[in-house]
Amino acid sequence: MKLIVTDNYNEMSQIASHHMLGYMTQNRRVNLAITAGHTPAKLYEHLVSAIGGRSGYSHVHYYNFDEIAFKGQHREGVTISNLRQLFLSPAQIKETNIHKLTNDNFLDFERLLKEEGGLDLVLMGLGSDGHFCGNIPGLTRFHHTVVKHPIEGDLAEFIARTEMKGDLSSVPDHYVTMGPMSVMAAKNLLLIVSGENKAWALAQVIEGAVTEQIPASVLKLHPSLLIIADRASASQLSPESLERYVQG
Amino acid sequence: MKLIVTDNYNEMSQIASHHMLGYMTQNRRVNLAITAGHTPAKLYEHLVSAIGGRSGYSHVHYYNFDEIAFKGQHREGVTISNLRQLFLSPAQIKETNIHKLTNDNFLDFERLLKEEGGLDLVLMGLGSDGHFCGNIPGLTRFHHTVVKHPIEGDLAEFIARTEMKGDLSSVPDHYVTMGPMSVMAAKNLLLIVSGENKAWALAQVIEGAVTEQIPASVLKLHPSLLIIADRASASQLSPESLERYVQG
Amino acid sequence: MKLIVTDNYNEMSQIASHHMLGYMTQNRRVNLAITAGHTPAKLYEHLVSAIGGRSGYSHVHYYNFDEIAFKGQHREGVTISNLRQLFLSPAQIKETNIHKLTNDNFLDFERLLKEEGGLDLVLMGLGSDGHFCGNIPGLTRFHHTVVKHPIEGDLAEFIARTEMKGDLSSVPDHYVTMGPMSVMAAKNLLLIVSGENKAWALAQVIEGAVTEQIPASVLKLHPSLLIIADRASASQLSPESLERYVQG
Amino acid sequence: MKLIVTDNYNEMSQIASHHMLGYMTQNRRVNLAITAGHTPAKLYEHLVSAIGGRSGYSHVHYYNFDEIAFKGQHREGVTISNLRQLFLSPAQIKETNIHKLTNDNFLDFERLLKEEGGLDLVLMGLGSDGHFCGNIPGLTRFHHTVVKHPIEGDLAEFIARTEMKGDLSSVPDHYVTMGPMSVMAAKNLLLIVSGENKAWALAQVIEGAVTEQIPASVLKLHPSLLIIADRASASQLSPESLERYVQG
Repeated sequence: MKLIVTDNYNEMSQIASHHMLGYMTQNRRVNLAITAGHTPAKLYEHLVSAIGGRSGYSHVHYYNFDEIAFKGQHREGVTISNLRQLFLSPAQIKETNIHKLTNDNFLDFERLLKEEGGLDLVLMGLGSDGHFCGNIPGLTRFHHTVVKHPIEGDLAEFIARTEMKGDLSSVPDHYVTMGPMSVMAAKNLLLIVSGENKAWALAQVIEGAVTEQIPASVLKLHPSLLIIADRASASQLSPESLERYVQG
Repeated sequence: MKLIVTDNYNEMSQIASHHMLGYMTQNRRVNLAITAGHTPAKLYEHLVSAIGGRSGYSHVHYYNFDEIAFKGQHREGVTISNLRQLFLSPAQIKETNIHKLTNDNFLDFERLLKEEGGLDLVLMGLGSDGHFCGNIPGLTRFHHTVVKHPIEGDLAEFIARTEMKGDLSSVPDHYVTMGPMSVMAAKNLLLIVSGENKAWALAQVIEGAVTEQIPASVLKLHPSLLIIADRASASQLSPESLERYVQG
Repeated sequence: MKLIVTDNYNEMSQIASHHMLGYMTQNRRVNLAITAGHTPAKLYEHLVSAIGGRSGYSHVHYYNFDEIAFKGQHREGVTISNLRQLFLSPAQIKETNIHKLTNDNFLDFERLLKEEGGLDLVLMGLGSDGHFCGNIPGLTRFHHTVVKHPIEGDLAEFIARTEMKGDLSSVPDHYVTMGPMSVMAAKNLLLIVSGENKAWALAQVIEGAVTEQIPASVLKLHPSLLIIADRASASQLSPESLERYVQG
Repeated sequence: MKLIVTDNYNEMSQIASHHMLGYMTQNRRVNLAITAGHTPAKLYEHLVSAIGGRSGYSHVHYYNFDEIAFKGQHREGVTISNLRQLFLSPAQIKETNIHKLTNDNFLDFERLLKEEGGLDLVLMGLGSDGHFCGNIPGLTRFHHTVVKHPIEGDLAEFIARTEMKGDLSSVPDHYVTMGPMSVMAAKNLLLIVSGENKAWALAQVIEGAVTEQIPASVLKLHPSLLIIADRASASQLSPESLERYVQG
């Protein structure tokens, strides 16, 4: 685990974009699983500015690592729609370079990934409850590969509010996600964290026990994890952690 | 995780030696943490036969990953003594290529490892209780780096019987081991397993939950784990596991 | 460049097989380009013994790097036929894991290789004239990718005698080979050398200038080249070379 | 070989800085050999802005790959002085992370590099005569490791004019450089090219023969070479080259 603490969100986004562009300028196929949500918005702006519409990046392939379908609607799911808006469309990524995890292929997804060479990097955010990808406390077991989880109760309302403009009727009964075992199988992991509301979760991840109650706590066991966190989200880390993982 | 199932112990030892020699014939510094015990005995015979006394392997460095000192005695500990007997001495490895984890340096060991480039491979056995390295059920937390554990009660008697010729007075109060987080930081892991008495533990590791009660269950989260198991030790694995991990 | 000098041919074959099995036991797709001819015969015996008919190696893919068709005959070419006899058939390698370079696909072969992840290792022999793969003095330019070369005069007679049982009418007008630039694009190279009649060529390769007159002299510019040579073939190397590359 | 063509010098500098920061944000020791001169000036501005004075980069080590001493003066040589001014000083790199090639250590430099893990990346510019590092036409042999070359005639005057403010009395009799064989031993190479006056050399490097008369022509034989060139310097490339290496 290596930790980079930045002054603020903008700097976090810039450094994370540098890290990703380091992969994207390699001279071989590169497979990236990327995250939707608010945290990466600025990072994607940097990426779009750097590669959008330019030739020379046709060897970079993109994967989503979780998906929530819209119930009863013939359209792409929440995650891939979000990724299109944030990054894939403005960056003019070709459809042949977009690989979608869906309800239909989740059981076969890990095999597909292997055949295509595996993931070089997974870009993830951190939930204030310690979740990563679709691995939320209460549903997550560390040995899960790609799984389908039920959507019930509070989770359904949360998804309706945050992803479906409050329309509970569009919330499906299940969602799919790469589980911890599948994410950990990637060659490299990048976790970006911003804001004071993530400070508790980040301290748990870096300093706490490895427990399924804080799913992201498992990530520190990966041999190549980079965490880029702004000062606000790093505010609950001990001086020992900063010394150890920033300089390490 | 990839699994190779061999007909018997001899074949397991041979294939594991091939795998290790693949690292040892690379043209750069290679850092190997290696295991004492019964399981690797034949593997070490193969290695000694392949490289013993030959020039061309001065770039290969060896580390022990746990150590039990002899109480009140000025001599090297149990693990390194065992490694010398099994491999280091017959293979004529130079002292400059032997890096010892001891009671004195365990707090600094992870930093030393990093400076020397990190471990390329950790060769480990599996305990019938699911332990690996010195990470035994009851004492192990997954977030442990290099740690000192107390030796008490049954453990003291076990160590006296198996490592000290029954002499309880030589058993120290503590031992040191690379914890799960330090082992998982290695670039590659190799787990060798032999015998029917390991079959339950191996099934837990491959098919069960990731739990500190079965410390080795965490290893399957590593992006580059190879398990070489003989048929007897693989006898409790389901056809699905064999299909998935042998062919995977 | 790293050099391992062995006592004899048998030891060379054994160590080379260890090195290759090190790749073949990795837990991801591995692409190997392998050589026909006399030098690797014993090496292939070891490989057949280690993996022949065993499950667990379906992730290893094989490529030939040159080919001479039989003129006017509907059968596979010299190289792939030789590889089948020496290794692919006794090792029971599946057809889906055999990737053939032929007159028909040579212009597209480099693109195919890239899509399949590139070569992890090229196993090559060394000609007494300094050739490697089909890169022979007089025809070879270092910037060649996959090329078709004419077969004329002495070369035609040589091929008739060594590969066609003396039947000059079976010798085609051209052969195809991965050129130096394509071979050098592989991640790792392994050169095996045996016998006093290779001693001059090996000394040129290791100690001489990089020149198209000794095509294999270019190989020492690769960042990951391992040469395994028996004592007879290493007999013209200077003590300085042995000191530098054996210990290096 | 992979080629990225940018609109202009600024964009070239930015993309090259992204690529380098990709290495610099890895979670292990990283060894970079970096170039002096005009071409990287803007790239270094980006790097200084990204990492200057920030903690978290103490694992990145810097090497110069050539050096010209000032004759009869007790001060650091031309290259390292230039690197300090352009990058090392404004970025506040610690002395422990700066590794100097000098007249005194050049014979031992390759061994030192190996012990420290080898170079992860060499950042180079391209001379309009096809030189790279201190490997100039007329003096360069591809098999050179780290070498001392004489400074005579035109070269002395050129160095006096460009590096010594016209003071011919400060020009030494020799300079040292990593030769082609040492540069090619690095894991990855990055060549940055800008300006119409480099267009001929770049076309030779990408499309021409591998010849010691154009020393940089050898770089295309490296398995991991990235060239970032602005449109002006790429103006003499054929459509086939652009198609092949930009998309490749």
